[in-house]
Amino acid sequence: MQVNDGADAAQKLTPKGQATRERILEHAAALIYGKGVHATNNELVRRAAGVSGSQLSHYFPTKESLVLAVIDWHADSVLGFHRSERFASFDTVEAFQDWTDFYVLSGRPFEDGCSLGSLASEIVKTDLDVHDRLAEVFAQWREIFRVGLDRMRQLGRIDASADPARLADMFLAAYQGGMLLAQVARDIGPLQDALSAAVDHLRTFVTSDDQHMG
Amino acid sequence: MQVNDGADAAQKLTPKGQATRERILEHAAALIYGKGVHATNNELVRRAAGVSGSQLSHYFPTKESLVLAVIDWHADSVLGFHRSERFASFDTVEAFQDWTDFYVLSGRPFEDGCSLGSLASEIVKTDLDVHDRLAEVFAQWREIFRVGLDRMRQLGRIDASADPARLADMFLAAYQGGMLLAQVARDIGPLQDALSAAVDHLRTFVTSDDQHMG
Repeated sequence: MQVNDGADAAQKLTPKGQATRERILEHAAALIYGKGVHATNNELVRRAAGVSGSQLSHYFPTKESLVLAVIDWHADSVLGFHRSERFASFDTVEAFQDWTDFYVLSGRPFEDGCSLGSLASEIVKTDLDVHDRLAEVFAQWREIFRVGLDRMRQLGRIDASADPARLADMFLAAYQGGMLLAQVARDIGPLQDALSAAVDHLRTFVTSDDQHMG
Repeated sequence: MQVNDGADAAQKLTPKGQATRERILEHAAALIYGKGVHATNNELVRRAAGVSGSQLSHYFPTKESLVLAVIDWHADSVLGFHRSERFASFDTVEAFQDWTDFYVLSGRPFEDGCSLGSLASEIVKTDLDVHDRLAEVFAQWREIFRVGLDRMRQLGRIDASADPARLADMFLAAYQGGMLLAQVARDIGPLQDALSAAVDHLRTFVTSDDQHMG
């Protein structure tokens, strides 16, 4: 299932139209991330992207349509990353460890936080009708973890007492909460601790068979 | 240690002055929570609190001083709650379970999210010089958990392999992340899952002595 309904509309555009739309989106995403949804208006987006008012309203007739496209833009990136081969559908403890290491060891700057989490914390307060889309993206993200954990349980890698839905929420919350705390502390420690504790907890379910095999 | 430096200034005010300052703060906190720091200006605060421009600038000469006071206002509430007798310094698993139950079972509306977490997610993006105060408040919050967990370990309630600092970050991240996910999903499930998994993880460190005593 594709989140990005807007992509259908985008695919009907000429290559030049697609490039313009993409340029507007990039600048809008940066403005919304930096200044917030509330403070990002047509004028700022228009100037930053170097397009006319009529061009902007051609691609994004309303603020809602622009914010929806920005959500999709971040969603494609985050969901695509989690679905990449690197994490092998999250059906091993090692995949979760690798995911944790990515944020903690790779030097990815945590100062930027989670683009979707940051957007979410603002959107939950707005009247914009984009709430359902955001909820859908987070549900899909969580589902990637849940399906992987469920498969681990079916394969006997973790024991039957493990609750894939609960553990999926645990990982996603550890990431979102840990990222916020790391940004506040200007230190990666809280994110590292939260993600490490989550992986530690997953390991408590590893079956002894699997430990011997490992 | 008191977070609230602003309270010293407030104590020099007359009772009427204190009441006016408190009224401004309440309205400023509501505006900042609802509209965000960026969109909350003097005019909005002045009107909501029913004070003149000179009164507002008397109590809060700059936006920074107002935002600092709002941080302190939320901090007093959150830290006071966590230091209440109810949680007995968080030195038992039951205290953490009770804390989790408070959010999950008490019917406290999660739709409002965490006032400090919400403020934090916006403040990490602003240029306001209030970052250190916010970091200090979160450090104190985490320290309440860490000290309790450390005491549990010293008393042999949890075994020596438990890392109090890591577990403290785990609980705070589970709360912040779970609250955000619950707001997005408009469902308490993710918060419940994240907090339950955190308590589950703490229980894996409970010593068999303590289990028999319980």
